[in-house]
Amino acid sequence: MSTPIEELAAALPEGTVVTDPATSDAYRRDSASFCAAGTPLAVVRPTTTEQVQAVMRWATAHRVPVVPQGARTGLSGGANAIDGALLLSMVRMNRIVKIDEVDQIAVVEPGVINADLSRAVADVGLFYPPDPSSWEMSTIGGNLATNAGGLCCVKYGVTADFVRGLEVVLADGEVLRVGRSTAKGVAGLDLTRLLVGSEGTLAVITRATLALRPTPEPALTMAAVFDKTSDAMTAVARIMASGLRPSMMEYLDKPSIRAVQAYRDMGLPTDAEALLITQSDRGPLAAADVAAMGVICEELGAAEVAVAEDAAESAMLTQARRLVNPAVEELGATLVDDVAVPRARLVDLLAGMDRISAETGTLIVCPGHIGDGNMHPTVVFDRGDAAAAERAQTAFDAIMRLALELGGTITGEHGVGLLKRDWLRTELGETSYGLQRQIKSVFDPLGILNPGKVL
Amino acid sequence: MSTPIEELAAALPEGTVVTDPATSDAYRRDSASFCAAGTPLAVVRPTTTEQVQAVMRWATAHRVPVVPQGARTGLSGGANAIDGALLLSMVRMNRIVKIDEVDQIAVVEPGVINADLSRAVADVGLFYPPDPSSWEMSTIGGNLATNAGGLCCVKYGVTADFVRGLEVVLADGEVLRVGRSTAKGVAGLDLTRLLVGSEGTLAVITRATLALRPTPEPALTMAAVFDKTSDAMTAVARIMASGLRPSMMEYLDKPSIRAVQAYRDMGLPTDAEALLITQSDRGPLAAADVAAMGVICEELGAAEVAVAEDAAESAMLTQARRLVNPAVEELGATLVDDVAVPRARLVDLLAGMDRISAETGTLIVCPGHIGDGNMHPTVVFDRGDAAAAERAQTAFDAIMRLALELGGTITGEHGVGLLKRDWLRTELGETSYGLQRQIKSVFDPLGILNPGKVL
Repeated sequence: MSTPIEELAAALPEGTVVTDPATSDAYRRDSASFCAAGTPLAVVRPTTTEQVQAVMRWATAHRVPVVPQGARTGLSGGANAIDGALLLSMVRMNRIVKIDEVDQIAVVEPGVINADLSRAVADVGLFYPPDPSSWEMSTIGGNLATNAGGLCCVKYGVTADFVRGLEVVLADGEVLRVGRSTAKGVAGLDLTRLLVGSEGTLAVITRATLALRPTPEPALTMAAVFDKTSDAMTAVARIMASGLRPSMMEYLDKPSIRAVQAYRDMGLPTDAEALLITQSDRGPLAAADVAAMGVICEELGAAEVAVAEDAAESAMLTQARRLVNPAVEELGATLVDDVAVPRARLVDLLAGMDRISAETGTLIVCPGHIGDGNMHPTVVFDRGDAAAAERAQTAFDAIMRLALELGGTITGEHGVGLLKRDWLRTELGETSYGLQRQIKSVFDPLGILNPGKVL
Repeated sequence: MSTPIEELAAALPEGTVVTDPATSDAYRRDSASFCAAGTPLAVVRPTTTEQVQAVMRWATAHRVPVVPQGARTGLSGGANAIDGALLLSMVRMNRIVKIDEVDQIAVVEPGVINADLSRAVADVGLFYPPDPSSWEMSTIGGNLATNAGGLCCVKYGVTADFVRGLEVVLADGEVLRVGRSTAKGVAGLDLTRLLVGSEGTLAVITRATLALRPTPEPALTMAAVFDKTSDAMTAVARIMASGLRPSMMEYLDKPSIRAVQAYRDMGLPTDAEALLITQSDRGPLAAADVAAMGVICEELGAAEVAVAEDAAESAMLTQARRLVNPAVEELGATLVDDVAVPRARLVDLLAGMDRISAETGTLIVCPGHIGDGNMHPTVVFDRGDAAAAERAQTAFDAIMRLALELGGTITGEHGVGLLKRDWLRTELGETSYGLQRQIKSVFDPLGILNPGKVL
């Protein structure tokens, strides 16, 4: 007699269900630090919606938890294995079904890599803005599940802003289609936005209709170096209040600048407190835009301002930002935070971070999407040193507490997953948390969809 | 001994609760045709969140239905009275609490008139884009409840796209705060978007944090007259696929053109089949943008193309669109529809409308936000003629059926209310409808919030 998992394997095409631990071990974790990962029952890699339905019917029948996964580039443990769970890897459902230039939409399966979609739509003069740092690896399904952000959000918005409709498979295996393919629509409650960002706790996304825009015009870049963090923050506020609409507005603090310069000699001023990098992508108007941003920085005492005159100079100026992640990883193990505060409170957030760094004796490197008030304070520690890891956790918690005190959020774009589950309840308060738990139960009455994550 | 409603009246400031039928009668209906309106128990006009809480606690205790109302400019009966209900008019909660230029947000009470907010933020160089036709009268709370659209949606999006956070009062009187004041945030399920567009069926909105943008640059307008509707539709598709980003793209069909010309002699060509009016608001680039749109229209055989060279000419060209509503109201009673279809299916929608008009023997006037595929086919009839009213209803239903067949929606921006309640179930399908009903029950277990509307 065969076991239930053997029955599922037999009902799906050869190779869809993998129980070999050598393979399934590779799927146990996403890219988060400090998050537990259990031992899964199996990895399932479906290629069709019907197969996902079969998996969920089986999971419901056998009360087996299911953890939907994309490319596992997430930073909050949302895709980590749970003991005895199916890891439902969606990476093989990776077709771009349709790109429609008149309605400016794309219909895609969840396993499509963000960069593949971005390039495919660019080929026909269109633009899919959401650009998380992981865009060369992460899947659209993962981006949808976490409502991923990125560098261009300051002008264009986050993943949710580009979702028109979804096809999902519910916990019991039924297919649900929500949203629309039209530009506007207000028929009933917005279940699409409820599903986006729900981190696999409500349903399994099997197809998405995404909104596209025309290709933006060429961008130019400005970089400004400040000796005082507070001056840089004033520049951010002044630029955002000026009516200029930067298509990128990134920030490196002193430890970030030093990490990048140590990683690659770019001639960065390692004594500077802050580096601000902004862009305008308004084509013929971009030069005037970045010049105006530069003037604001100069008026606020920037030590140095560089305004690119062409694409090559722009690429050089933005390279420092792109190198932060690999540069910081060279320093040690990292615990990457993702808080967001109102722009007006950024100066308090950064001052508080210095205090937390001193009090906990930790190195905190703080790059961020400063135009959105969304910072990535990253605690660097030695993974082999238990005391250091504990200090890192203390600093990490203190940063979230500070963000909430400043009217902000514990997660701007990375999601809750396992990493911030306790903090979510603090941020939401009991009334909102209770409603969210009840909505979870409406979608997943047996609690088999990514249990123990988020809520 | 006092009655329950007398107790409520006594617990609230003088004049808050009005039971005099002469007054409450004036609150019984919104602006929809063909929608029943019951006899309310009272009108309640609170001025604070605490008063709304007191009302909802009382309503829960006495199982009395509550119908939240704004300015009652809605077109689907969503604010119509229910027998024995409290009409909870939010128009006295009309303070603009805060406008923040650095974070580009406004915090407002729900009774603020859209135009008042738009003007207040314009005074400090900011822009609140959502611009329903009712903007001079309708409230932000009503706009939020229906997720209102408008003319500028084609470039800027709908009301929901500008909502960061809400304070609402739940059915049991508890206050719930959802969303955030930061630009980004992904902490838990998106209850904000669930509440926006829920037409008073989930909670009572008492405060909103709205996102603003910098003031757009000056706009210029193009108008093109077509002898063939299909050529105009091809022009719409071509302009939208060209990479141009019109800030307005409106359409008048032949009956609309004739109605406007009859209402005011603007020299409109009454034999033309279609009038397309587009704008670009890219300041120094607007002239080139509208010229390019004009070239596309000419290439597609437009009989006449006018491109404005300044604001005065632009205003003249857009006036025809602004006069459609009063002009059509001169023709008779109207049943205003609000379907949306993918842009590629507009030509089929308009052809189908001609067929429906002929088959039902009704006059259908069809202006619309054509750039969004969101049309307002308006059936004109004689209210005193029962047979004519029945034909109007038949035509109205046929238009919604057609929109669904074309992959569209029964409501692009007006909402479901009473008018389209049966059709909502058809559009959603049983699975989605069932989930929405369950979510309604999570928020409103006693079913006292706007019962019989939407779901």
